[in-house]
Amino acid sequence: MNMVEIITKKKLGGALSPDEIKYFVDGAATGSVPDYQLAALLMAIRLRGMTAEETTALTLAMLKSGDVADLSAIPGIKVDKHSTGGVGDTTTLILAPLVAACGVPVAKMSGRGLGHTGGTLDKLESIPGLSVSLSEKAFVDQVNRIGLAVIGQTGSLAPADKALYALRDVTATVDSLPLIASSIMSKKLASGADAIVLDVKTGSGAIMHTLEGSLELARAMVAIGALAEKPVTAVITGMAQPLGTHVGNALEVKDAIDVLSGRTKGDLLAVSLLLGSHMLTLAGAAKDPAEAEIQLRRALDSGAGLEKLRQMIGAQGGDPRVCDDLSRLPQPAVRRRVTVGRGGYVDAMDTTALGLAAQAMGAGRLRKTDALDYSVGFILPVRIGDRVERDTELCTLCARSEAEADAAERAIRAAITFSEEPPARPKLWEAVVTADGTRMNET
Amino acid sequence: MNMVEIITKKKLGGALSPDEIKYFVDGAATGSVPDYQLAALLMAIRLRGMTAEETTALTLAMLKSGDVADLSAIPGIKVDKHSTGGVGDTTTLILAPLVAACGVPVAKMSGRGLGHTGGTLDKLESIPGLSVSLSEKAFVDQVNRIGLAVIGQTGSLAPADKALYALRDVTATVDSLPLIASSIMSKKLASGADAIVLDVKTGSGAIMHTLEGSLELARAMVAIGALAEKPVTAVITGMAQPLGTHVGNALEVKDAIDVLSGRTKGDLLAVSLLLGSHMLTLAGAAKDPAEAEIQLRRALDSGAGLEKLRQMIGAQGGDPRVCDDLSRLPQPAVRRRVTVGRGGYVDAMDTTALGLAAQAMGAGRLRKTDALDYSVGFILPVRIGDRVERDTELCTLCARSEAEADAAERAIRAAITFSEEPPARPKLWEAVVTADGTRMNET
Repeated sequence: MNMVEIITKKKLGGALSPDEIKYFVDGAATGSVPDYQLAALLMAIRLRGMTAEETTALTLAMLKSGDVADLSAIPGIKVDKHSTGGVGDTTTLILAPLVAACGVPVAKMSGRGLGHTGGTLDKLESIPGLSVSLSEKAFVDQVNRIGLAVIGQTGSLAPADKALYALRDVTATVDSLPLIASSIMSKKLASGADAIVLDVKTGSGAIMHTLEGSLELARAMVAIGALAEKPVTAVITGMAQPLGTHVGNALEVKDAIDVLSGRTKGDLLAVSLLLGSHMLTLAGAAKDPAEAEIQLRRALDSGAGLEKLRQMIGAQGGDPRVCDDLSRLPQPAVRRRVTVGRGGYVDAMDTTALGLAAQAMGAGRLRKTDALDYSVGFILPVRIGDRVERDTELCTLCARSEAEADAAERAIRAAITFSEEPPARPKLWEAVVTADGTRMNET
Repeated sequence: MNMVEIITKKKLGGALSPDEIKYFVDGAATGSVPDYQLAALLMAIRLRGMTAEETTALTLAMLKSGDVADLSAIPGIKVDKHSTGGVGDTTTLILAPLVAACGVPVAKMSGRGLGHTGGTLDKLESIPGLSVSLSEKAFVDQVNRIGLAVIGQTGSLAPADKALYALRDVTATVDSLPLIASSIMSKKLASGADAIVLDVKTGSGAIMHTLEGSLELARAMVAIGALAEKPVTAVITGMAQPLGTHVGNALEVKDAIDVLSGRTKGDLLAVSLLLGSHMLTLAGAAKDPAEAEIQLRRALDSGAGLEKLRQMIGAQGGDPRVCDDLSRLPQPAVRRRVTVGRGGYVDAMDTTALGLAAQAMGAGRLRKTDALDYSVGFILPVRIGDRVERDTELCTLCARSEAEADAAERAIRAAITFSEEPPARPKLWEAVVTADGTRMNET
């Protein structure tokens, strides 16, 4: 077996055997296969595709390339949640405390922001003092003590995925369904969860812009879960516009605290409850998502969710007073209110462009080594379908400088279009995919 | 402009602009673009293709990446010849002396063997003492003195092609028509020729196995020539079986000397005369290929061709006595006569497998740094369509050891099939392609 034969087989549209897949995955993890051969293979996979069997073999090979977290010391069914990445999408900071407040342990390993979407770790680190680097033991202990921990990866989880992802990023092979599905599932399985809820975004800000593509990705990941004997529920949610009204690291923490305090309702809360309800159901804490949602709403209304977040921040070394005093979060140098030029209906948003605008302000990384400014980003109160008048607030910019605020204002204005007629409001969710099949949102 | 954008464009099936092509070609030549990005792009080109405009832009960008040989000190029209690579295909050693004997200067830069096909330089170096490393000045002087020189590349001709070719070899992207066409034409144009005859092989031992693929490649190269204002004639010749009866470096030199001495007729002579006649025609030394062939046959019959080879060998430091005493060529340690198992008609040959068998014996390189054994290879007197009886000679092996002879015998037996009914004999040539169009061999 050698790489040229493996590349040739995929180039001609053949299906790779599990042994062939293991060969290049191990080569990626150890560095024994050169990057240029992996790059050629990744492009051949991007253009020729992979069967369900190949995608599962790839997932398992990447999973086995490194450590697998052992969460057996935490009693009960551990349910993880993963989002394919959205803008203003901070559901983890809302649903994790709510689920934990309902008595289901949440032991979550999260990621950093990449491209135009934010990462939970970066948002958490915007809280003064908070650390996301815990040992596996400290992580397990914290979950057993307070029911909740959100940290970065411990050990070397799926190092082959890490190597391949870095290569995909620079060879234009990110947008391959089998590569996306196997990358996500290998990391989630390595994180030690018993069951997984996947939030698969669809729309202008998602990795899959079409509902069809999102459904295909969801089904691929659910199928991998079934073969790996881990229950997986995938919810396809809308990303035609940012999910919350706040985009940026500290701004999204503020948004989450506003939601958990009951001050903010809206799409971010609704999607958090939806995903959380599937987590409670998979954990066996509720007979169905409807019953689960009642429990979650109770934890929200009682303040138990916010209290759980407060506990977690304190346990991880952060300043828990941010939950009551938002001014303790990093504040921007420049704050600018931007108004609408002329009236009309908010018709559409280029959500990827909005994410890139926040990234350019310093909220995201252009290179992996870039430092972030946690205070920057923007608040975008308008939603698709809203009627706005001249001088209605379009957004409030939080920037490092007037020049960066100017650039962000131009980018945001260009990303939002208006119409004379009211457009349909985007659906909050489109479908739920499980091993039993797909249920579409018919409303 | 950046590589990820360029790769993305080709991945999606778009056509690259001349500037985009120049960007990655210059990056390949200077090393400023990493190999993994070039590898991903090469695979995208292999699977998405290139337009005629892109292929020409790629050729010119590779040509301009290095030096261009200056042959202006040689009077007359310099016609070069290139073969896409065959087995037992040593036409250069026959036609170059014959063309030179007709008074047309031959200033030829050749290549080394790669994969399953031999290279002219390696064959020449099997002649004791002969050097193929001449300065450009010594090269020009020798052509002006005796009318003929065959050497390796001088200077840094098309370094971008060199870098890309090395990468294609290890990323399974050799078999891309636009990459093949641009690679050949960039080197030929850099070699300073005024006109070019291309020998495009077709059949089981050729880079293009089908006539259609060979025609497409020939037309692509003729089109590049037209855009670069260099007359190009492409002849599509058969590679359903080795061209000559001898395969291996010194063995092919012997075959060439046998042909030039008049002892051996057959396909190798016929194709050499055909290609040579187009060279004389492009050089203006004959009004058409038929008239040219008469001149070439005269040079053959008079011994002027062999004398020209003898002069060239002497001029380049080699032992010219090999032309009269073949035992002065390197001799193998083991010589074995292999006979046919049972009678029948020779039906087909896997010519690539035959080439690989010679390569495994030590006649070709598995890695670029491999040393060759000039003495090894085999003599295969049988031709497709021949009637053979039990105990007819199938081949004579020239090997380094009995073990390698065993392996070669197995490989050669497996590569040749027999039938009860006489098959059609393959055509010597299938088509001639020029800027004016394609003429098929209707016989």
